[in-house]
Amino acid sequence: MSTSSSQPIGIFDSGVGGLTVMKALIERLPGEDMIYLGDTARVPYGNRGPDTVRRYAVNAAAMLRSHDIKALVVACNTASTYALDALRDTLDIPVFGVIAPVAREAAHLTKTNKIAVLGTRGTIQSDSYQQSLLNLSPDLNVYPVACPLLVPLAEEGWTSGSVTEEVIEHYLATLAQVQVDTMILSYTHYPLMREAIQTVVDRLSPQEVTLVDSAHTTSRAVEFALGESSLLRDGNAPGIHRFFLTDLPQGFVETAERFFGRSLDGACEHIDIADSTSSTIAPTG
Amino acid sequence: MSTSSSQPIGIFDSGVGGLTVMKALIERLPGEDMIYLGDTARVPYGNRGPDTVRRYAVNAAAMLRSHDIKALVVACNTASTYALDALRDTLDIPVFGVIAPVAREAAHLTKTNKIAVLGTRGTIQSDSYQQSLLNLSPDLNVYPVACPLLVPLAEEGWTSGSVTEEVIEHYLATLAQVQVDTMILSYTHYPLMREAIQTVVDRLSPQEVTLVDSAHTTSRAVEFALGESSLLRDGNAPGIHRFFLTDLPQGFVETAERFFGRSLDGACEHIDIADSTSSTIAPTG
Repeated sequence: MSTSSSQPIGIFDSGVGGLTVMKALIERLPGEDMIYLGDTARVPYGNRGPDTVRRYAVNAAAMLRSHDIKALVVACNTASTYALDALRDTLDIPVFGVIAPVAREAAHLTKTNKIAVLGTRGTIQSDSYQQSLLNLSPDLNVYPVACPLLVPLAEEGWTSGSVTEEVIEHYLATLAQVQVDTMILSYTHYPLMREAIQTVVDRLSPQEVTLVDSAHTTSRAVEFALGESSLLRDGNAPGIHRFFLTDLPQGFVETAERFFGRSLDGACEHIDIADSTSSTIAPTG
Repeated sequence: MSTSSSQPIGIFDSGVGGLTVMKALIERLPGEDMIYLGDTARVPYGNRGPDTVRRYAVNAAAMLRSHDIKALVVACNTASTYALDALRDTLDIPVFGVIAPVAREAAHLTKTNKIAVLGTRGTIQSDSYQQSLLNLSPDLNVYPVACPLLVPLAEEGWTSGSVTEEVIEHYLATLAQVQVDTMILSYTHYPLMREAIQTVVDRLSPQEVTLVDSAHTTSRAVEFALGESSLLRDGNAPGIHRFFLTDLPQGFVETAERFFGRSLDGACEHIDIADSTSSTIAPTG
């Protein structure tokens, strides 16, 4: 089937973190319709095995494809690590992960060839950013830093202030010696604390350090690729945004709005997605 | 079948928090054999519906009963809230939850009839401690305080220090005005930060506040009830302790040992438990 520029962009994450990617996409592409799917009933994916993550991601993509999306943004580190190939095998539209664009941008920016990767314990252990960077250039020195408390702090709204800065300083203290000049904020939650991280980095580091976050970098990559394929929508009408979640626990919308940076206007819809092992994905519309 | 005092005690939690209860039980009953089951593959239960929690708890109890336990300690707030009746209906041994003993102790201790309940957002929203206290005495004034960041802080080992105290102070600041004299630390993680909580409480509160935690209170209730039923084991031989977990993610044993307060000596075993809806539980041994 043919894909047209007027179709929506699909964004998928295991939870709410991907809303920072959608927010950056909207800033860049305000005229695009977008559909967000957060698999909140099965979050976190970081604890699941690769096969399970792949199956969940294929289920989610099938749901989004049934809404006739023209491109899929996998705004989730775990799904980007394990499911991109499976999604590209089964979908007939462009599929973007969060890891490759960020790695490319960081490798492009560094002058000292020293790059830090801040992530959850799962993302760091998966080695995905480290591998992606070393595939781009084996001369890079990569310093992975697991920062497990930043996710709960971000989800609870502690994105600035003394507690958050002290926690960040604890995680980054050892980096002061190695003098990285580029720092990847790998997790989709981290753009919320970008200022606090920059404050601590400026305090700790003798030289300038550039932060690269997945929301802004991925949205730029999506804009560029859709432009190249003539899939960007024409016109000035603002895009329509829909939000589907597989579970809507109490207090959830508040957290989601913190990540999205504005009201969801009651646009959150609950949806059950089938856990099927079918490997073909076709639009129903 | 008959139950004998030489059988082990079973302890069940959705994750590792219940290890604080087991630790307190061992201090009190060093000669008892104990079997811990952490349903780490399905943690956290706080996000699940009551029927699902009930089914998971019945599955877990069936696994422990197959090891011929003489009593079951449900060291999990969510399972204690939703599954105790179902477990008592299906098991032929004493079943202990963490909520009732703690509520009784707090109601017994308070002189001002003002009791604070510190818990996760899920525990506070479930209203279980509040209801349990008001059922004991309608004259009690209960002040629930959701403290969502204390669990990740405890799991990451930040159990004392300035960050932890600042977070605790943030949660307890409003309590300074109402002058409670008793504070329930409802979550099984909180005994790890009991000292930090006491430090902050002493700083904030004009009068003395007594902390009641689920680990110590529940273990005392279990000792008393087993003694009354002549189910306490005789002899001076130290008990044997086994640990079963439904998932063993990387770094897990380290976290578990922090909760247990000592080495697990490689005694962690991985086990899959059947998710059956069968309502009968019988020992296989």
